[in-house]
Amino acid sequence: MAGKLRTAVLGATGYSGMELVRLLGRHPRVEEPLVLRRATENSEAAAPLSTMASSGQSQSVPFSWDALQKHAVELLFLATPHELSRELAPEARARGMRVVDLSGAWRLKDADHRRVYGFKDANAEAAAKLDADAVYGLPELNAEEITGAGLVANPGCYATSVILALAPLVSARVVDREHGIVSDSKSGVSGAGKEPTARTHFVSVADNFSAYSVFGHRHTGEILEQLGMESSELIFTPHLLPIPRGILSTIYVYLNDDMRAEQVESCFREFYHSKQWVRVFPSPNLPQIQDSVHTNFCDIGLTLDTDGRRLILVSCLDNLLKGAAGQAVQNMNLMYGWDEGEGLH
Amino acid sequence: MAGKLRTAVLGATGYSGMELVRLLGRHPRVEEPLVLRRATENSEAAAPLSTMASSGQSQSVPFSWDALQKHAVELLFLATPHELSRELAPEARARGMRVVDLSGAWRLKDADHRRVYGFKDANAEAAAKLDADAVYGLPELNAEEITGAGLVANPGCYATSVILALAPLVSARVVDREHGIVSDSKSGVSGAGKEPTARTHFVSVADNFSAYSVFGHRHTGEILEQLGMESSELIFTPHLLPIPRGILSTIYVYLNDDMRAEQVESCFREFYHSKQWVRVFPSPNLPQIQDSVHTNFCDIGLTLDTDGRRLILVSCLDNLLKGAAGQAVQNMNLMYGWDEGEGLH
Amino acid sequence: MAGKLRTAVLGATGYSGMELVRLLGRHPRVEEPLVLRRATENSEAAAPLSTMASSGQSQSVPFSWDALQKHAVELLFLATPHELSRELAPEARARGMRVVDLSGAWRLKDADHRRVYGFKDANAEAAAKLDADAVYGLPELNAEEITGAGLVANPGCYATSVILALAPLVSARVVDREHGIVSDSKSGVSGAGKEPTARTHFVSVADNFSAYSVFGHRHTGEILEQLGMESSELIFTPHLLPIPRGILSTIYVYLNDDMRAEQVESCFREFYHSKQWVRVFPSPNLPQIQDSVHTNFCDIGLTLDTDGRRLILVSCLDNLLKGAAGQAVQNMNLMYGWDEGEGLH
Amino acid sequence: MAGKLRTAVLGATGYSGMELVRLLGRHPRVEEPLVLRRATENSEAAAPLSTMASSGQSQSVPFSWDALQKHAVELLFLATPHELSRELAPEARARGMRVVDLSGAWRLKDADHRRVYGFKDANAEAAAKLDADAVYGLPELNAEEITGAGLVANPGCYATSVILALAPLVSARVVDREHGIVSDSKSGVSGAGKEPTARTHFVSVADNFSAYSVFGHRHTGEILEQLGMESSELIFTPHLLPIPRGILSTIYVYLNDDMRAEQVESCFREFYHSKQWVRVFPSPNLPQIQDSVHTNFCDIGLTLDTDGRRLILVSCLDNLLKGAAGQAVQNMNLMYGWDEGEGLH
Repeated sequence: MAGKLRTAVLGATGYSGMELVRLLGRHPRVEEPLVLRRATENSEAAAPLSTMASSGQSQSVPFSWDALQKHAVELLFLATPHELSRELAPEARARGMRVVDLSGAWRLKDADHRRVYGFKDANAEAAAKLDADAVYGLPELNAEEITGAGLVANPGCYATSVILALAPLVSARVVDREHGIVSDSKSGVSGAGKEPTARTHFVSVADNFSAYSVFGHRHTGEILEQLGMESSELIFTPHLLPIPRGILSTIYVYLNDDMRAEQVESCFREFYHSKQWVRVFPSPNLPQIQDSVHTNFCDIGLTLDTDGRRLILVSCLDNLLKGAAGQAVQNMNLMYGWDEGEGLH
Repeated sequence: MAGKLRTAVLGATGYSGMELVRLLGRHPRVEEPLVLRRATENSEAAAPLSTMASSGQSQSVPFSWDALQKHAVELLFLATPHELSRELAPEARARGMRVVDLSGAWRLKDADHRRVYGFKDANAEAAAKLDADAVYGLPELNAEEITGAGLVANPGCYATSVILALAPLVSARVVDREHGIVSDSKSGVSGAGKEPTARTHFVSVADNFSAYSVFGHRHTGEILEQLGMESSELIFTPHLLPIPRGILSTIYVYLNDDMRAEQVESCFREFYHSKQWVRVFPSPNLPQIQDSVHTNFCDIGLTLDTDGRRLILVSCLDNLLKGAAGQAVQNMNLMYGWDEGEGLH
Repeated sequence: MAGKLRTAVLGATGYSGMELVRLLGRHPRVEEPLVLRRATENSEAAAPLSTMASSGQSQSVPFSWDALQKHAVELLFLATPHELSRELAPEARARGMRVVDLSGAWRLKDADHRRVYGFKDANAEAAAKLDADAVYGLPELNAEEITGAGLVANPGCYATSVILALAPLVSARVVDREHGIVSDSKSGVSGAGKEPTARTHFVSVADNFSAYSVFGHRHTGEILEQLGMESSELIFTPHLLPIPRGILSTIYVYLNDDMRAEQVESCFREFYHSKQWVRVFPSPNLPQIQDSVHTNFCDIGLTLDTDGRRLILVSCLDNLLKGAAGQAVQNMNLMYGWDEGEGLH
Repeated sequence: MAGKLRTAVLGATGYSGMELVRLLGRHPRVEEPLVLRRATENSEAAAPLSTMASSGQSQSVPFSWDALQKHAVELLFLATPHELSRELAPEARARGMRVVDLSGAWRLKDADHRRVYGFKDANAEAAAKLDADAVYGLPELNAEEITGAGLVANPGCYATSVILALAPLVSARVVDREHGIVSDSKSGVSGAGKEPTARTHFVSVADNFSAYSVFGHRHTGEILEQLGMESSELIFTPHLLPIPRGILSTIYVYLNDDMRAEQVESCFREFYHSKQWVRVFPSPNLPQIQDSVHTNFCDIGLTLDTDGRRLILVSCLDNLLKGAAGQAVQNMNLMYGWDEGEGLH
C-alpha cells in the first residue's frame, strides 16, 4: 500500500458520506479511508441498514485529532453539518492537512450570501482567512485553483446542476441576464438528508410533489457568485421529487440575439471540450434523471424556440455523486495531479 | 328514477372515462350512465383490472346511434381520441343531444392553434360550425356560456392548472406579459393515457423525471386563447412525474408594478370569491399535489419576492378530476342548472 | 342537528385518526366530531400538511374530561397508543361513554397473548374487568356482541385481513390446522405510523422490500384468539411494501380432504352472504391492493391446486379503512343499530 | 487486445441483455462484445432511452451467422425469447461456439417440466441431444459441469433465489420435505420484461401489489429439478412489487428435527464457504432488497422459531444481475477458468 494517499472521512453515516467511503474504498490511488465518528453519531446510526455476516465495510473510530495524526492522514473529507465544518476546517488546516468540505461552510465569498447560514465562528480571524483561501470545488470551472488548494469547498448539488448548465452561455455573454433566468429544479429525497422528519416520511413524499424554499434556498448564492450574477438576474426554485436520488433542472433563458440551436450547442461543446464528466446532448434531445443516476456525469441538453431567442436547458446529475461524493473525489484527483476520472468509473 | 338525466359515456376504458362513469354512477341527479364501447375497445381492455364477483359496475354495450336513441340519452360524454370526437360530435348535435367532449377536438377557436392536431374533417362545414359554437368548459371563467351550450369542450388538464392560476392576474392587468410568463408544469402518468408504451412502462417512469413536448405541447393554444395572450408571452413546459395522478404547475410571473403579497392574494380571493372548486392558499403557503389529489379542487398558492415584482404561483389539481372527469361533471351541473358541487364531494 | 350522535376523537393527528375524523365529518347520523388533542401533540403536528385558506377542517381542543362532558359526547374514539388507551378507556366507561379503541389495548382475552404489549395498569382490577367486557370489533364475526358493547376493541389491520380470509374455512372445519397455516402478509407504510423514523424515511422504503417482526408480531394473538387456534398452527410474517397504503395477505392452507374450487368458494359465499364489506372473488381470480384501497372492502380470492388439497388465499384491504378507521365507523353503525354501510360509501 | 475472449450478445435491447453488454464492456478479459440485432428489434427499441452525444455504447449489427464467424466469436450469449434460443443454440453449437442462454429454453431435463414452455423444435433430435448436454448454470451448485460445458442454461431469477436458499438444507437432509415448503416470492417489474403491457404500465404497478401465476410459474420446474424434489413438496408463488428491480423470497420450512439457529446457520456457512457471491446473514438478521440490488450477491438470512422446527428463510438478489446477466458473466468466468468475481465488482 506504500505510496497511496491516506484519507479520512468524518460524517460517514449520512448519504454523501456513505457514498464517499464507498468510492474511496475502491479508488486505486487511495488507502482504505479512516472513517471517523462524531460523538453525536450513535452506534445504531453508524451501522449499516442490516447487519451483514461478511461485511468488508470500514469500521469507524471516534473522531479525534490524535486519531488523524496517528493515521498520518493527508486529506480530510468533512461530510458534516456546516457548523461543524466551520469549526474543524481551520484546525485541520493548521495541522497541515488538506481538506475537502462537502457542506455549505466554505463555498461563499460574499458575506451577504453567507448570512443565510448564520455562521457563529469562535475564531473569526481564522475563519475569515479560510473564507478567503477556500476554493470553490467545481472542477469544470476552477481546475487550476483546486489543484493547489488547501481547502476545497465542494459545491451544492443544485448549484452544480445550474452552474454547469449556464456557465458556457454566461461566459460567452450570449445570455440576456437583465431579462432574468429561471431555474426550476427538482431533487430526489436523499438531497434532504438522512434525518427522519415529517417531510421525508415515505407517506409524505410518495404520490406527492412540492416546491420549497421559494426565493430563499441556500444554494442561490453559490450560483450567483460562480456566474458573476446579481440576485435580480436569477430565480431558483427547488422542488422535492418522489424518487431516492437525482436532480433535474429546467432552466429558462432569453438570449441577447437570435441564434441557431447548433450555435448554442457548439458553445457547450467548446466549453466542455476536454471535460470528461459533462455530457452535452445533441439538440433538441434532453437528458432524463435515469441517464445520470449512479454515475458522476452531469448531462446537459438544450432546446431553442423557433424564435431563436427563448432557450430551455435541462441539466441532470446524481445528487450524491456529481452533486456530492463523486465531485469530492474528482476534486481530490485534481488536488493530487491524477486523472479526473480515477476511481469514478 | 323519473326525472333524472339520461347520460352516456363513450370511451369508458380510459382513465378519464373510468372516473367519469364512477362519478356519474353516484350523482344524485343522473341515472346510471349508459356505457358505450367502441369497436376497437376489445373485451379485455373493457374489463376492470381484476374480475370481481359482485361487481356493480356498469356493463358496456357496443356504440351505436340506435343505442343512444333507445336509451333516450340527453347528454353524451365523449372520452374518446380527438379524431373520433371530431367525427361524432356533429352527428350527436344533429340528433339533438348535448355533448361534453373530453378530448382536444373542440377546445380551440384559432385555426393556427388547431393545426397541431391535424384534424381531417369529412364534413368541413359542419365542423367549422361546431368549432364556432363549442364552448370552452372552464366553469370558473365561462359559466354563463356553458349553461346554454350544446357542445362543451372540456379543458386540458395542464391548461386548467395554468389558466386558473393566471386568469385573476391577467384579468386585473397586473402581469408584465411582454416580459414573458414561464409555466413549468409536472404531471403524473395517468395524464399520458392508458395505452401501454415504452414511455409509460413502470421501469421507464420509476426513479425518473423528464421534460417532454418542449415548445410544442398541444395545451399551449388553450392557455393562450383563454387568457388572450400571444405565443411570445408564454413558455409552457410539461414534465412526467413518477406518480399515478396529479399536476403541479410552477408559474413565474413579473408584475407591471410593485405589489404586496396581500394585494396579489386579494386579487385571487376576489376573482374566485364564489367559486367552490378553487382554493386560494394564504401567501406564502403553497399547495402540494397530495392536497388536491382525489378531489375536484384546483389549489393555488403564491409567493412574492421581496422586490415586489417577481411572483411565483403554484397550482395543483387532480388531472383525472378537476383536470378531466370532475370538470366534465361540473360542466354538466352548470348545463342543467344544478349546483356546481353536485356529485363531486 | 338534533338527534345526531355526539362523538369525539382523541389522536386525530395519526393516519387512522385523520381518516376517522374525515369519515365522521361526512357521516349522515353523526354530528361534526369533537377533535381532542393530547398534551404531547404539538400544534405543528396537529396542523394539516399545508395550511389552507378556507379549510373547513375540524379545529382541535385540548383533551379533558370536562371538554367531553361539556360536549355531551356519547361515543369516544381512541386513536391513541395502547398505553394511553389502557389508561383512558376505564375512566371513559365509568363516565358513561361508549368507546371504540383503535389500539391493541383491549383486543386480547388471553393474558399470555397480552404479555407482548407489557401493559402496566394503575388500576389492575378495573383493567381486568374491562378486558373481560371488551368486544373484539370484527363486524363480520361478532356483530351481535358489538351491538351491545360498551367498549369495542377495533381489530388490527393485518389481523383483519387474515381472520376474514380464514374464518369461513376454519368455521367449516375443512382446514388441516395441524399441518400449519402460513400467512405471508405485506403492508404499506402508513401501517407503520406517522412517526418519522429511519425505517419510514422515503429513501429506506423506496425501491426496497423487507420482512419484519418474524415469529413475533403483536397481531398474531388476535388471529389465534378469533379463530380458536393454537400458536403452533399459524406462522404470520409481516413485510413492508413501498406503497403508502394497503395490505395483501397470501395465505397457504392445506385442506383436510380433497375439495373442488367451487366448494371452497361456496364456503366463502355462504359465510359472507349478508356481509356488505367483504367481496369474494370468483376462483381462481385474486384481488390486488388497488382493488380495495380507498374503500372499506376486504377482498378475498382463492386458488386451489389441482391436487384439491393445497389452497392459496389472497386477502386485500386498505389498512386505514377496513383495517382501522372504516372498521371503527362500521362498528359504530352496529352499536347504534344503523346500516353497516352508513357513511362508508 | 490479443488474447481477450471474443463474445457476442443477441437480444441486447431487453433489460438483461443491456446489463450483460454493460458488464462485458468493462470485463478485463473480454473484448468489447459484438452486439447483434434481431430482425424484429426495430431501431427505436435498439436505441438507448435518450440519444446521447458522446455515447461510447456498442453499436449493434444485424444478426447473421456470417457476422459471428467474421468476428470469430467464441462465446455467444442469447438473451432471446426461449423459442429463438431453442432454434439458435443447436446451430451455434454445431458451428463450434460455446453458448450461455439466458432464457428458459435449456434449463429443464424433465420433459414433463418442459411441457409448460410448449417447445416446437424443427430438429427434434438435435434439440434432444442439447437438452441432455446443457448444464444448469448455477455456479454455487454446478461449478464443475459449467467449466466444461458447451451450452450453459442460465437459471431463472426466481429459481436462483429459491434454490440458493434451500440447497444447503436439502443437501443436509434436515428439511421435512414431505410437510411441504412454501416460497412466497416477490419481484420488481424488470423481471416482467421490457415489453409494454397493461400489466407493466406505471399506473397498474404503482401503489399496487399482486400475486400471479399461482400454482403454475415456469420457474417451478427448475427449483424441483435442482433440489431433487417432487412437485407436491413445494408451493412457489410469485408476486409483483412496485419497484424496478430486486427479488425477495420468504421461504417457510419445517425441519425434520429440532435444531438451534446456530446449527442452521452453520449449515449455510459450510455450504457456501468458498462461494464469493452468496452472503449468509447472522441469524436472526434478514436481508432486504436494497442490500443486494446493483450487486451480484445473493443474500440469505434465517430466523428459527423458538420451537426449533419452523424456519423462515429470506433470500434477496438483483434479478438482472445474480438473477440474469451477472450470473451469466459468473458462468463465463467458470467456463474459461477465471476467478468467479472477474468483472463483477
